[in-house]
Amino acid sequence: MKHPFNLSLYLVLDPDLCGGEQGMVATALAAVAGGVSIVQLRAPRWKKRQWVVAAQALKNALEPLNIPLIINDHIDVALLVDAAGVHVGQQDIAPEMARQLIGPNKILGLSASNAAHIHAVPQGLVDYIGVGPVYATGTKLDASPVIGLNEFAKLMQGKTLPAVAIGGIGLGQVAGLRAAGADGVAVVSAICGQANPRQAARALRREGATYDR
Amino acid sequence: MKHPFNLSLYLVLDPDLCGGEQGMVATALAAVAGGVSIVQLRAPRWKKRQWVVAAQALKNALEPLNIPLIINDHIDVALLVDAAGVHVGQQDIAPEMARQLIGPNKILGLSASNAAHIHAVPQGLVDYIGVGPVYATGTKLDASPVIGLNEFAKLMQGKTLPAVAIGGIGLGQVAGLRAAGADGVAVVSAICGQANPRQAARALRREGATYDR
Repeated sequence: MKHPFNLSLYLVLDPDLCGGEQGMVATALAAVAGGVSIVQLRAPRWKKRQWVVAAQALKNALEPLNIPLIINDHIDVALLVDAAGVHVGQQDIAPEMARQLIGPNKILGLSASNAAHIHAVPQGLVDYIGVGPVYATGTKLDASPVIGLNEFAKLMQGKTLPAVAIGGIGLGQVAGLRAAGADGVAVVSAICGQANPRQAARALRREGATYDR
Repeated sequence: MKHPFNLSLYLVLDPDLCGGEQGMVATALAAVAGGVSIVQLRAPRWKKRQWVVAAQALKNALEPLNIPLIINDHIDVALLVDAAGVHVGQQDIAPEMARQLIGPNKILGLSASNAAHIHAVPQGLVDYIGVGPVYATGTKLDASPVIGLNEFAKLMQGKTLPAVAIGGIGLGQVAGLRAAGADGVAVVSAICGQANPRQAARALRREGATYDR
């Protein structure tokens, strides 16, 4: 059965930004205590032996809390740790192929950066889209051009799936993005590496609370 | 059924060194015409959408020639294109887990750089080991320290599986490595990017011919 998921506050966890494997689990747990509803592990510079260890540790920590763990890019790792889902970008394994590997019972997320991407999302295969970067980001080196809030709002009008806004999002931007149609916001550095990840998450969650379902 | 394989001349194909996707297929076909017996695709800087396309193109080219295609590191890609096998390093997905994902009918290769690695190779799971780097190499940025021919010969005494020598191997070194116990040699730049990959392969194959089974 597919893990139920809620996009309202989506933590993209980069272990290199929050103290490696151990700091990563602590950050995730604090963030969940503060209101994070779903966690993705993204470690583009890591080799896969370390990936598997980290993913398993995160899954063990999140499963009792009923928080789904999404694995970025590496479907082999997701299968090994039986993660709740995978997230692929436009340069990663295509969603049709990703679905073929993961089967019907895992969450599949897809990044989209423009109207053409959103129009091309295969219906019935993908569970949510991540749309961005809305703002400039320093945490993704190969990010697409920045969209901005106005263009993001236009993209939300054409969406047929739940959508999470991503890219340079911090406090003060959540309400605007939710009002523009985002079902949630994804953050990296607004939580990872913050002195108090729990409070950081709580403040972000509170800002989006009006829109939470 | 597992693809039969012969390690005598093992081409590790780095598409960035041989003209991208198209040059890569042409290089592989020329190299096979010259005597390459098995081909691995290794593209550590590539994103996976491109990986899948390249792997499928190579498989289509090699399958009619009965030459097995091995995928480096990315087991998800290997599963998608139904490659003959996968090759993992000491920092990649562990061989036990790799075997779990690929099942019993694919070739599984493992890199080993020292006696401890060779001693730890799980028996009955791995089909061959790649031992090196024997010589200094410029084509693998995260390579282990160089072993040298004498140490390589010692490692061959403790092996319990077919072994292919790898790392900076070119013409003039094949006979010595085979005499030291290698079941074959793996090359990158001795074929990839050479003006005539077929002749380059033929010369390497000829040097090892005394030892071929």
